[in-house]
Order: sequence, then C-alpha cells, then structure tokens
Amino acid sequence: MFMHNKRLMYTVRVSEPDPKLASLMLEQFGGPQGELAAAMRYFVQGLAEEDPGRKDLLIDIATEELSHLEVIGSIVAMLTKGVKGKLAEGAEETADMLANITAGGDSHTLSLLYGGGPALTNSAGVPWTAAYVDSIGDPTCDLRSNIAAESRAKILYERLMNVTPDPGVKEALGFLMTREVAHQKSFEKALYSIENNFPPGKLPGIPEYANKYYNMSQGPGDARGPWNQGEQWEYVDLRQDQSAVDGGDGNATVRLAAAEIAAVEKVAERTKSDLSRDPTTGADLGAGPGAGKTKQVSG
Amino acid sequence: MFMHNKRLMYTVRVSEPDPKLASLMLEQFGGPQGELAAAMRYFVQGLAEEDPGRKDLLIDIATEELSHLEVIGSIVAMLTKGVKGKLAEGAEETADMLANITAGGDSHTLSLLYGGGPALTNSAGVPWTAAYVDSIGDPTCDLRSNIAAESRAKILYERLMNVTPDPGVKEALGFLMTREVAHQKSFEKALYSIENNFPPGKLPGIPEYANKYYNMSQGPGDARGPWNQGEQWEYVDLRQDQSAVDGGDGNATVRLAAAEIAAVEKVAERTKSDLSRDPTTGADLGAGPGAGKTKQVSG
Amino acid sequence: MFMHNKRLMYTVRVSEPDPKLASLMLEQFGGPQGELAAAMRYFVQGLAEEDPGRKDLLIDIATEELSHLEVIGSIVAMLTKGVKGKLAEGAEETADMLANITAGGDSHTLSLLYGGGPALTNSAGVPWTAAYVDSIGDPTCDLRSNIAAESRAKILYERLMNVTPDPGVKEALGFLMTREVAHQKSFEKALYSIENNFPPGKLPGIPEYANKYYNMSQGPGDARGPWNQGEQWEYVDLRQDQSAVDGGDGNATVRLAAAEIAAVEKVAERTKSDLSRDPTTGADLGAGPGAGKTKQVSG
Amino acid sequence: MFMHNKRLMYTVRVSEPDPKLASLMLEQFGGPQGELAAAMRYFVQGLAEEDPGRKDLLIDIATEELSHLEVIGSIVAMLTKGVKGKLAEGAEETADMLANITAGGDSHTLSLLYGGGPALTNSAGVPWTAAYVDSIGDPTCDLRSNIAAESRAKILYERLMNVTPDPGVKEALGFLMTREVAHQKSFEKALYSIENNFPPGKLPGIPEYANKYYNMSQGPGDARGPWNQGEQWEYVDLRQDQSAVDGGDGNATVRLAAAEIAAVEKVAERTKSDLSRDPTTGADLGAGPGAGKTKQVSG
Amino acid sequence: MFMHNKRLMYTVRVSEPDPKLASLMLEQFGGPQGELAAAMRYFVQGLAEEDPGRKDLLIDIATEELSHLEVIGSIVAMLTKGVKGKLAEGAEETADMLANITAGGDSHTLSLLYGGGPALTNSAGVPWTAAYVDSIGDPTCDLRSNIAAESRAKILYERLMNVTPDPGVKEALGFLMTREVAHQKSFEKALYSIENNFPPGKLPGIPEYANKYYNMSQGPGDARGPWNQGEQWEYVDLRQDQSAVDGGDGNATVRLAAAEIAAVEKVAERTKSDLSRDPTTGADLGAGPGAGKTKQVSG
Amino acid sequence: MFMHNKRLMYTVRVSEPDPKLASLMLEQFGGPQGELAAAMRYFVQGLAEEDPGRKDLLIDIATEELSHLEVIGSIVAMLTKGVKGKLAEGAEETADMLANITAGGDSHTLSLLYGGGPALTNSAGVPWTAAYVDSIGDPTCDLRSNIAAESRAKILYERLMNVTPDPGVKEALGFLMTREVAHQKSFEKALYSIENNFPPGKLPGIPEYANKYYNMSQGPGDARGPWNQGEQWEYVDLRQDQSAVDGGDGNATVRLAAAEIAAVEKVAERTKSDLSRDPTTGADLGAGPGAGKTKQVSG
Repeated sequence: MFMHNKRLMYTVRVSEPDPKLASLMLEQFGGPQGELAAAMRYFVQGLAEEDPGRKDLLIDIATEELSHLEVIGSIVAMLTKGVKGKLAEGAEETADMLANITAGGDSHTLSLLYGGGPALTNSAGVPWTAAYVDSIGDPTCDLRSNIAAESRAKILYERLMNVTPDPGVKEALGFLMTREVAHQKSFEKALYSIENNFPPGKLPGIPEYANKYYNMSQGPGDARGPWNQGEQWEYVDLRQDQSAVDGGDGNATVRLAAAEIAAVEKVAERTKSDLSRDPTTGADLGAGPGAGKTKQVSG
Repeated sequence: MFMHNKRLMYTVRVSEPDPKLASLMLEQFGGPQGELAAAMRYFVQGLAEEDPGRKDLLIDIATEELSHLEVIGSIVAMLTKGVKGKLAEGAEETADMLANITAGGDSHTLSLLYGGGPALTNSAGVPWTAAYVDSIGDPTCDLRSNIAAESRAKILYERLMNVTPDPGVKEALGFLMTREVAHQKSFEKALYSIENNFPPGKLPGIPEYANKYYNMSQGPGDARGPWNQGEQWEYVDLRQDQSAVDGGDGNATVRLAAAEIAAVEKVAERTKSDLSRDPTTGADLGAGPGAGKTKQVSG
Repeated sequence: MFMHNKRLMYTVRVSEPDPKLASLMLEQFGGPQGELAAAMRYFVQGLAEEDPGRKDLLIDIATEELSHLEVIGSIVAMLTKGVKGKLAEGAEETADMLANITAGGDSHTLSLLYGGGPALTNSAGVPWTAAYVDSIGDPTCDLRSNIAAESRAKILYERLMNVTPDPGVKEALGFLMTREVAHQKSFEKALYSIENNFPPGKLPGIPEYANKYYNMSQGPGDARGPWNQGEQWEYVDLRQDQSAVDGGDGNATVRLAAAEIAAVEKVAERTKSDLSRDPTTGADLGAGPGAGKTKQVSG
Repeated sequence: MFMHNKRLMYTVRVSEPDPKLASLMLEQFGGPQGELAAAMRYFVQGLAEEDPGRKDLLIDIATEELSHLEVIGSIVAMLTKGVKGKLAEGAEETADMLANITAGGDSHTLSLLYGGGPALTNSAGVPWTAAYVDSIGDPTCDLRSNIAAESRAKILYERLMNVTPDPGVKEALGFLMTREVAHQKSFEKALYSIENNFPPGKLPGIPEYANKYYNMSQGPGDARGPWNQGEQWEYVDLRQDQSAVDGGDGNATVRLAAAEIAAVEKVAERTKSDLSRDPTTGADLGAGPGAGKTKQVSG
Repeated sequence: MFMHNKRLMYTVRVSEPDPKLASLMLEQFGGPQGELAAAMRYFVQGLAEEDPGRKDLLIDIATEELSHLEVIGSIVAMLTKGVKGKLAEGAEETADMLANITAGGDSHTLSLLYGGGPALTNSAGVPWTAAYVDSIGDPTCDLRSNIAAESRAKILYERLMNVTPDPGVKEALGFLMTREVAHQKSFEKALYSIENNFPPGKLPGIPEYANKYYNMSQGPGDARGPWNQGEQWEYVDLRQDQSAVDGGDGNATVRLAAAEIAAVEKVAERTKSDLSRDPTTGADLGAGPGAGKTKQVSG
Repeated sequence: MFMHNKRLMYTVRVSEPDPKLASLMLEQFGGPQGELAAAMRYFVQGLAEEDPGRKDLLIDIATEELSHLEVIGSIVAMLTKGVKGKLAEGAEETADMLANITAGGDSHTLSLLYGGGPALTNSAGVPWTAAYVDSIGDPTCDLRSNIAAESRAKILYERLMNVTPDPGVKEALGFLMTREVAHQKSFEKALYSIENNFPPGKLPGIPEYANKYYNMSQGPGDARGPWNQGEQWEYVDLRQDQSAVDGGDGNATVRLAAAEIAAVEKVAERTKSDLSRDPTTGADLGAGPGAGKTKQVSG
C-alpha cells in the first residue's frame, strides 16, 4: 500500500516563472528517462519478483522515484504558475499572451493543452508510453536494464543542470541526479548478488557461434579492441564466412501441403512479373507530352 | 554504406506452416526486444560516436542485427506461406479460412492486415516504435543500455525456443540467441575499456545524498542486502528523515510578479471550493427518487 | 513524498493460475480505464492545484489508486505464476508450453514479452499511454473528467466481475469497484463545492448560438427530448439554417500579400487539373490488354 | 449516411497568414480535446446505442462536430496559405524560408511534413490517436464522459481566444466555444433523463467500503470538505486501517500445482540473491583505479 | 458542413451475433486501411486544396467514406449485440461469459473495454492513429497516395469476404469493396488530369544520379527487369561505384569553432576507449567463480 | 545478409553546426516520409515476395534506403556536433547553453534527450512508428504504395532544400531527392510488368456499384471532371439515391437468440431515456444560485 506525506522529498525553491524552462523539465517528468518511467519499471518488477530481498529493494526505489516525480512535477508547476494564471484569466493583451505561451521549447502545448499543469509528456510534448518500460520478468536482465536506466537518468539531469540558470531548480536537480547514482549502485549490488548471472537465463549458447566476432562493417576505420580481439574471440572477416554460417545454402524454405502449394502457385501466376517487355507506366504518362521535364531529370 | 548478399546469415528450414507460431515470432521482428530495435539502437549510436573503435563496433553489430532481422523475418514468411496463399486466392470455404486466420496468438491480424508478410509489430500486433530505442548519446550510458538490451533479447529467444516444436525454427533461434550473448560480451568489453565509466557523465554527485538508502517500503518483508547495508551505505529508516531531506520545509515555492499574483488570485477566487456547505451533486440527482440504489451501495 | 507499506490495501487470494484471466485483468492495470490512468490523472492535477482542499483530495485519491494498482497487479502476478515458472525453466514439452502461453486473450504476449509479470498494457497488449490522461488544468473541467473516469472504471470492474469465476479474484474486484463509486461521490462533492461551475471558464458564450440545437441527423428515428426541446432550446431543422450560421457566405478567406499571391498562383498553375480531356491513367494501363477484368468490374 | 454542403457552418475570415498561430489551432483539429475526438466519441457511441432518443442526439452532435472540424481546419488552411505557396515554389531565399517555417510553435513540422495543410496532430505535432476516445458502451458513463469532454473543449477554445489577435479567427473560435457549452447542456439533459443513473451499471457496491474516505496523504495541508466529511462519510485516518482493509494479512497468494511449484522453486534457486557477501560490481570496476571519482561522489 | 441521414448507405443484415467476426471487422473501421483513415486522408487534403475540381472530388469521397465507416461500424454493432447485452446484465454464469468474450481474435478487448461498441482500433486492438494518414499537401503525391490507399482497402475487404460465412455481412463487404475500386479510378483520373505530374514537385533531379540503378543486393537470385535494364538505366554493380558516388571520400565532416573543438575533444578524452588492455567486465564477474557456465557457452 | 562499408554513399560536407537545421533534417531520418520508413517498407515486402524479380528489386532499394538513412543521419550528427560537445562538458554559462539548445524547431529535445545524436523521430520529436509502413502483402497494392511513398519523399527533400542555406547539406539532399525519383520509376516499371494489375486482387467488383459517382458534397463549387463524367461514370446526385443504395431500408439488423433479446431488453429498460420530463441537471446545479452566469450565456 502506498501512503503520502505532504512534505516533498526535497524542497523546491524557484526564482521566477519560466515556461520555456518548464517545458524542458518535462523530459524528466513524462519523458523516457524520467521519473514515471523509473517508478513503473521497478514497481512492475517488484510485483512479480519472488526473491524477498530484491522485491524489497525494487519497491523501495519505485517509491522513491514516485517521490522524485512529485519533486520534478512541482518544479514544473512553479515555473508555469505565472502564465497559467494569466491565460486562465485572459489577463493580458492577446499579442502578449501569444508571446507568453510560445516562449520556446514546447511551452505552447504545455500552456494551451495542459493549462500549465505538469503533463506526462517529454520535452517535445510526446505523451509518456509504457513502451519505455523494458522490464521482462527475468531478474538478471531487469537489473541490467535498471542499471542502464539509472545511468541514463543521471545524464539527463546533468544536461538539465547545464542549461538551468535558476539556482533553486539547479539545486533540486542536483539532488535528483545524485540519487540516480545511488540507485545505480544498489542495482549493481543486487545483480552481482546473483551468482552466475551471465549469460542470463538457462539455455546455454551454441559453442560454435558464441565467440565469433563478425566484422560486418569494413573499410577505412576498421578497428580492433578488446571486444573483438584476444584469445576469447574468433574474428570473422571474410564475407563468405559471414553468411549461411550454419553451412547451409542460406535460403529460407518450408514444406507446404499440396493445397497450399496450389494456392501459392496461383498467386504467383496471377501476379507474376513479365520481364520480357518494357511497359509504359503511370510515370511515363505523367511525364507530359513533350516529356521535357523528364528529360531535365534524366539528363 | 550498406550492401546485401542474398544468402541469409543462417539457413531457415521450417517444417510446416503455422500462423500461430508465426505471430509469436513477430516479438523478435518488430517487438521491443527484437532485431529492429537492436539494429537501430546501435546504428544511431554509431552515427554520433566520436571514438573510432566504438564506432566500428557499433556499426558492426548494427549490421549483424539487420541480418538477424532478415532471418527472423524469413522464419515468419515461411510459417505464413500457406495461409497467405489460401487467403489471397480464396482457396477454401470461408468457415475454414476463418479458422485458419484465427489459429491463435495474433495470427488474425498478421493474416488480415499484413497478408501473412512479416510485420513490424510485436506478438500482440502493436507497431514497432522508436520509443523502444533508449540511446541518449553518452557512451557509458549507451553501452550499459546495450548490455541490458542484449540480455533481454537473449531471454526472449530462450522463451521462444521453449515453445517452438519445429526443429528447424528452434535451431535458427538458437543461433540468434547465442549471438546476443556474444554481443553482450563485446559491449561489456567496450564499456570497461572506458576508464572511470562510473558514475556516468561529468558532474559529481552531492556527497550528502550519494550514499543514503531510503527505506521507503516498510513492513513484514523489509530486507537488508549488499545494496543497502555495509559501510558504504547510510540506511535511512525514519519517515521524518525521508522527506524534505534538504532540511527545508518540503514545500514548492516560486516568486511571482505582481500581475502574476493578481491573476493567480483571481483564478483561485473564481474556482475556490466552498467548504461550508454540503452541496447537492449530480450523483445525488442521479441516484433516483427513492435513492434505493444509493442506499444499497451506502449500506 | 510517497511511502509504502508492504501490506496490500486488500488481500489477494487467487485459487489457481490462469494466464487467460490474467491477460484480461491487465485492462485495469495498464488500460485506459485502469488504475495507473486514475492515479496519474489525479496526481498531475494535484501538483498544479491551488485550492488547498481540492489539492488534498486529489493526492489522497491518487495515492489510493496507486494502492489499487498494486492490488490488481498482484492479482495478475498470482494468475501467471505457474506459466512464468515453467516458461523460465523450460519445464514442459514445447507443444505443452505453446498451449500454455496461448491460452486465450493476449496471454501469449503477457507470457513471452513480459515473462508473466504484470505489464502496463491493456487486455489487447497495447502499452499504456499518457494520452489516456485528460487533465487540462481547469478544476471545473478536471473534476468532471474525474467523475466520468470513475464511472467508467466502475463499469470495467463490473464487467471483469461478470467474467471471473475465481471467488478470491472476484472479491478483490468487488472492493476495487466499490471504491470507484466512493471516489465518484467525492469528486461530485468537490465539483459542486465550486459555485458557478457551469459553464466552465470565464468567457461567456455568444448568446446567439448558445441555445440552438442543430438537427444534423434527419430521417426516420429523428427524436425530441429534454436535450433539444423545451423553452431553453431553439430547434434548427432546416439545412439552410445550419450552414453559415453567422449570415456570411460560408467560405474561408484570407488576405495575402502580393508575393504570397504570386506563389499560390504559381502552384495552382503548375498543378491545375485539366478538365477538358479524359486522360489515360495508370489504371487503364493496368487493366490489361483485353481489359476483360475491367469489364468484369465495370459491368 | 453523411452528406456535405460546401458552405461552412461558420464563415472563416482570416486577416493574414500566420503559421505560428496555425500550429496552435491544430490543438482543436487533431488534439485530444479537438473536434475529431469529439465527433468520433459521439459517433461510435451512436452506432451502438439502443435508445432511439440518445442515438439521435449522439449522431446529431457527432455530425455537428465534423462540421466544426471543417471550420477549424479551414482556419488552419488560411493561416498557412502564404508559407505553403512559397515553400512549394521555393519562392524565397533559403534563409528567409527557414525563418518562415520556424516561426514558432510547431510551425516547422506543419510546414515541412504537411506542406501547410491542416494535419491531424495536436499543437506539439503529436498525431491524433483513438486513445483519446474514452467511450465504453455504457450510456451513464459515456454521457458523463461527453459532459466532461465538452467542458474541456470549451476551455481550450477559451485559451485559444485569449492568445488570438486576429479578429476573424477569434470570432469563429467564439462560435465553436459557445457550441461546446450548448452540447454540454444537451448531454447533461440526456444523462439525467436516465433514472437511477448513479452508481453506473448494475452491480451494487460493497456497503463496507462504499462510504469510507481513506486519508492517504497526510501532513500540513490535510483538509476536510464535503467530499470527506459529513454523515455519509467515514474518515479513515490511521495507516493501519488503510491496509488489508478486508481484515486479511495483506498478502497475495495463489495455489499452485506441484509441477508449478517445482518450476517456481527452480527459478528462485537459480536467481536467488546471496545476502551473505558484498560483491564487487560493474560499477566498482568502472569507478577507475584510483576510484577518485567515486570518492568525489561518495564524499 | 456535414449533414446526416439516418438511412445507412447500404442496408446491413447480420444473421447472428459473432464477436470473433466483429473483432476482425474492426480492421476496416479503425485499422490503417479502414474507412476512418480513408475519410480523414481525403478530408484534410480537401481542406487545403486550391484546385476547385479536385477539392470537390476529395470532399465527395471523404463524405462517402464517412458513410462507409457508418456501415462497417453498424456491422460490428450487430455482431456484438448479443454479448454486449449479456455482459452488461451479467446474464450468464461467469464461466460462460468468460468463454463468450474470449471467442477469438481480439474479441476480449472489444467486449471488456468497449462493451461491444465498435471501437476505433484495428483487429489487434491497436487504437487508430493519424500516423496512418500520409497526406503531405502536394496534389501529385497525395493523389498517388490515395490511389495506393484505395487499392489496399480493396484487398482488405477481399480478405474479409474470404473469411466471412455470414451472407448479409459478405454482401455489404462486397459493396464497400467495389466502391474502393471506383474511388481508385476517380483518383487516377484526377492524377492524370495534371499535366507533367512526374516527377512530383518543381526541383529537377540531378542528371548524374537520375538514371542509375544500384545493385545493392547481390548473389544467387540477382535479377534484371524493366526496372533496371534498358537504355534508360545505368546499372551499377561494382561495390566501389556504389559508395561515395559523388567522388568524395565518403566521410562526414563539419567545420567547428575553436570552443566547439575544445569541447568535443574534452568529451572524447573523457570517454576514450583504451585499446591497450583487456578489461575485466561485469560479465566476467557475473559468469561465476568456476565460470562453468561461461565455459559451456564458450565451448 | 547485410554488410557495411565505412564510406558513405554520398560525402557529407557541413559548413557549420546548426541544431535548428538538424532538428528539421530529422524529418527524413525518423519521420513518416523518411529513409527508415522507406527501407522498412521495401524490406518487409521483399521478405515475403515470391516473384524473384520483384524480390531482388525490393531488397536492392531497401538496402539503398538504409544507406540513405546513414547519409541523412550523418548530416544531423555534423549539425549537432558543436552543441553536443558543449552540453556534455557544461562548457558554457547555463544561459548560453539554454539558448543553444532552444535554437528553434525541436532542437531542445534533440539536444536534451538524444544528446545531439540523430534520433528516430520526425521534426516534431515524435518517435518513428511502424504505423508508417503501409505494406499489406499484395504486390499490386504494395507497388502502388511504394510509388506514392517515393513521390512524397521527393517532395520532402525538395522542401528541405528550399530551407537549407548550407551548400554542402543542400548538395547531399539533392542526391537523396534524385534517387527517390529513380526509385519511383523502378517501382512504376515493376507495377506495370504485372499484367492485369487493376483492379488489385482477385474478386471482381459488383457491377451495379462499380461505375457510380456519388456526389456527396453539394453546393457552390460542385464540379465535374474526368473522375465523374464521361461514359464510364454514372453520376448520382439525388440524396435519396445515395442512401440504402441496395434498395433496402437502410437499417442495420441482426437476429438474436431469446436469451440475447432478453438481456438487450433488460439493458434498454435499465438505461432508457425518460422523454416525458425536463430533468434538473448537474449543469443546472452548477450554474449557481442566481444563475447569472447561465443567463449571460443563454442571452
């Protein structure tokens, strides 16, 4: 069960309204690396987790992220408080109001559609989607996803700090950024508390393909590094060794029943491409009588 | 520049058509953990990468994932070849066709909308979205995201193998699964080739908040583990120490200009809540004359 | 700040695993009428709310909805616990596993992609989107939206109860359903505590158009009721009185600058439609030499 | 059957092109509170409605909203007519054109992607989605949704009027705004013409939970109002009375078959968290040899 | 202005309810090739069209498509009428109801979420999105898009007819299918009434690249046809002639200011990849003490 | 199998960084008419194609489009290289950085969320979705879709060229634009190499409805052209001839079983609309005691 205490986890002191800055902050409210994504990622994992220690950890941090969501949302609410009041009251000339709500970023949508209230969108106005939540119900994968997510969230806060002149906002962002680092450390500990966490899952890989590195991109700039050299790697450079690596013919086949074959052949016949002639096309018709335009294109 | 060789990276041998199985395979074609997501994740990172070694690595693996996309897509195409032909030709009684295209999973949409061609959706028919691509342009984060993504893809292939009776399909899935493990290893090597990759970014955390663990979820089941105990952690258990951790009042504030204050007050006045009376509501009106129904609810 | 207590708000007692039923329950976990949508609707409103009473109400109920989200998510986790374990362990023959994960509904995606963990999708596997959150930052509107949302959620729970044979699940659904009724009542009280809550906003309507009812759909079945008859309504039946109701010519016009006019005219000239001839088209080309097929269509 | 008359429902007189203003107007064309959402909301309800009076009402208003969609779309078309022509003809220097199509708002996308034609997006360029349509096929719910939707649309028009200097556009917006008020009144009449419309549906609530108000958010600012005080409410303040309200243990349980238990235990064993040691983690590896950076973070 | 006549464009006679079939029909109601997509495609084009003939054509057909939307929606409403009533009334045992609403396809979501009312989703339950509308405001492109869209809609109806045993439904589908053919013919006529409609737009292509065909996919199966052979084509087969076709070095470059160079170099230095050593990675840590598992994978 | 060569297909020479221009270029990277959409459209068609010639063509062009994706992505990467470095390093005052990342367009999201790396979004920041891919698995339709798509992509490049002052960028855009024209020609050839490609599919239309043109939009501006006049068309102008064209009553009907009828009637009774009285509504309650506000609206 969730409970709520009216004190924010971190006090929010905003110097003055700034709808443009507010619209940027939305990135960590309703964006892919934002606090709702974090909270939901850990919450859904926690619900299905069997291990008591990890379950506790996941719900602890999910709950903290909800508290962060409240902090960043409160920052947005403060930054838009001025334009929100004026827009609701029609308190200015329309030209001034127009300038106010189009201050930059996506402040126009934040003001018009959401009335200045924090909206679950990213900084481009794109609504939050659960497609951002990459949990799949395997702890060795989900912890890795969490580690990666915390690192991304850290950087997003760092970027916001680098563009925020308001000292009170910057201070709160610093707190939120720091907590992402702490969370990453916790998730790292949880991952490495699982013995044999690599490779994930149960099925072993096929030895023949497990240590190959296929050099698929070639040309000037081709590079070697610990990810493709050393005794654990077999470097496959020849194009012919990169296709049909199973030794087959590299084709896709299926065995069809007679009725299926008949139907497939009928379709093929009905839609077969006649290679024997050069048909007049719609483009030919459309190129005009003198076809001058086509000539220009065709040189 | 990309080039293409007509031989698949792995030969696809499907025993017989099975539209239900085909619709499940879509998970790794157009699903969040699928091959397009993988290819695009590395490709966009590669385009912006400055480090020559990592750039090469990213494009190598992006290209291989595109080749995997072709393999899994070819599996789908073989599994649907029968129903595709029959549906195009109207080759069966409608009742039989209806049964054929609703064999299970989301085979109905795969058949009807996409005509049996592999579609960039997941197994529920949800179109692929770039919201699945979590690249943010910082290598220490992006490599962690790649490590996590490869681990997830590995498990998805493992699950598919666990439900696939067709030996040829299972064999190809085994190849694809193994390659995800190899890719994870490469990305791990690349991450740890960056010295001081943790914490990500440049700004240091705020020492005061960096080592705290807030025990936000309490009650039976509360647990301790390396993620919240040991000398590196300060465990914060008291609710009062979890809010307004900066020592402030835990409120959100902003300084407004006079005109802004005036507008805010006007809105507040116009929409203020009258606490002094118990108003009749629409629900009261709707509960009906005898209000019997409300009584039933209200007990 | 949010806190968490490990006891659920309502005890969940599931009789036996049932992945099909689980996939239906997702409707109230990650669907448009589900608990996340409810929690987020009230939470974002609460963050921006100025009125202290309403702010408290909104956060109270937002928090309760998060607790409901946990209850419904726990139901899903219990219903999938069996298939989840088996799929992870590969504990059955592939044909049996295939049957297990395609039990009906969208259980295939729940099992494959989410590993049986509760996922923030609706019952069709569509990821939750903040497009479901219709808050706009005006209390008289938002409260009406909340009233409507609670009524919808009530019905969704009622439908789930009507298809749930499991008594423990049904009992928990009954609790959740009842709470939606209570919440609707609270929001009704809050709406009607605002004096003059209709029409919403500040700008008055234009008297000329405020009481008209345009009978746009005509024919057998045309009906009158309190929504279009009585002294407060002016019923507009004649088609000519329904268009250009301002008395103008019903056209759209704009004054362009000379350079703009020149450009518009150039485009118009370049793409003008030649009405004087019946051109041969791509379809004509494609209808084939004998055009037999076209004839068949054209009769 | 729908028919069309070439005269707009309201004459559109735009003073001069303004792509920025155009991009804001899209909010009511393809945004969540816009006219397509309104038309589709009522249209899908009307198709399934059994009550002849409501069916007529729903189609009447759906049809009018389509006519409004045409009006607001025509406003957009007029506001973009200048930039559209110039962009198609390349009629200006590129630097001037660049300035023209990035005038503010999301005019850049409106110009580039849609060529200045009205697009079914909101003012942030987000494509319209049927996720905005909240109809669920129960009249007492759907009418409440319609009432709420009309109130929101009214406010959106009011906001647009507050930022629109162009008198012709403002006049047309005034008409559209007024009609939303009239529609809300009609839907209110329809709702209250259903006797016993509250609570919605058929199943009664559970008396024990129907009148409780759970005070989930506590601390300074806790408030009472008609929504949680008075004889109809039982105010539940103690945290212990808010969890496991059914009197159970607040846990989630399910009865598993032996094979299911075995599989679950196997997974748990394979992924169990070892609490006895403090593992070295990837973050430890990544913190660098001197770990100076980590120290900086850790204080 | 739109108007409505209560008679459907085509009489709908459904033999008996069938929620599975209903969920398939949604493909043409709210799917990408469905009637809403068609209506909106032509409607938005019509609003911005300058040519009076095409404008009339576009609105004529948009209006007819809305009438088709009503026909297909009415088919859905009839097919779900049985389950809708029973679900609303709880008129059956829960086990029977469960079977009823999970009859196949995505009937579960159609019943649960939409109460059996026609919903603006495709047959997989994916909400309609304006991303399906590909209009860009250039008539020679938009007409081609319309031609293509009509051909796709024709095939979708054909597929539905091939799986529909109900004669009344099939008959109505036949009407709708036929109309798509007629619309395609009209749009073809409109396209070819524009002289010089190819290439679209105003800017000529660059002669050097206009007639080349790059043979990017090579190997067994390489084919020639009128699309890449004949005197109008220059067939480019050599890989070296396919890259850097401008004769440059095939690199991407930009001139940076000194401060920009400094920043780029700092990032590069901070995140450079150390190629000189083979770092221990998280995967190494996770492979376990005996690394037995890794061995298994590595062979 | 795909392979990669490190040389771009076209050399990218950017004069200087420009994040605003970069955000516009995204339209052809991750927008609906962009290169990923093109590549995926042809790739999925190619996988399912039976005809060897067309299969080769589709994969050839899919591969070239991937190479174009790399070119346009490289342009974006060069245009953002300056802001990317500065933002990562915090190399400027926050106010300057804020100005830098909000230069116009959606450069704020490109910088903040994606760190300046090319992102798979359109110019409004909307993530790419497979909903843009309209392939349905019928060659006569898919080729028409491809023709239309190439024409749209050509125009998008033309628009970008018209707003791009940077000569190196413009030159690369010219190459990409030209190739779309060449691709359209190839697809045209492929379509017309299928004999009898119109109408698409196998089922003939119903002669009675195949040649009718329904004049659905009437009034001043009604026009005739080759799309609705001439001997092949029957022009239907009378409204009565446009509805129930099958000669039926224009109603939708279904035969229900007795239990179904009973349930439907119960719902109807429970929710029937009482036409006999004018109910007091929530709006009446909300209009306030003096109802002054309502009066203002009602006139």
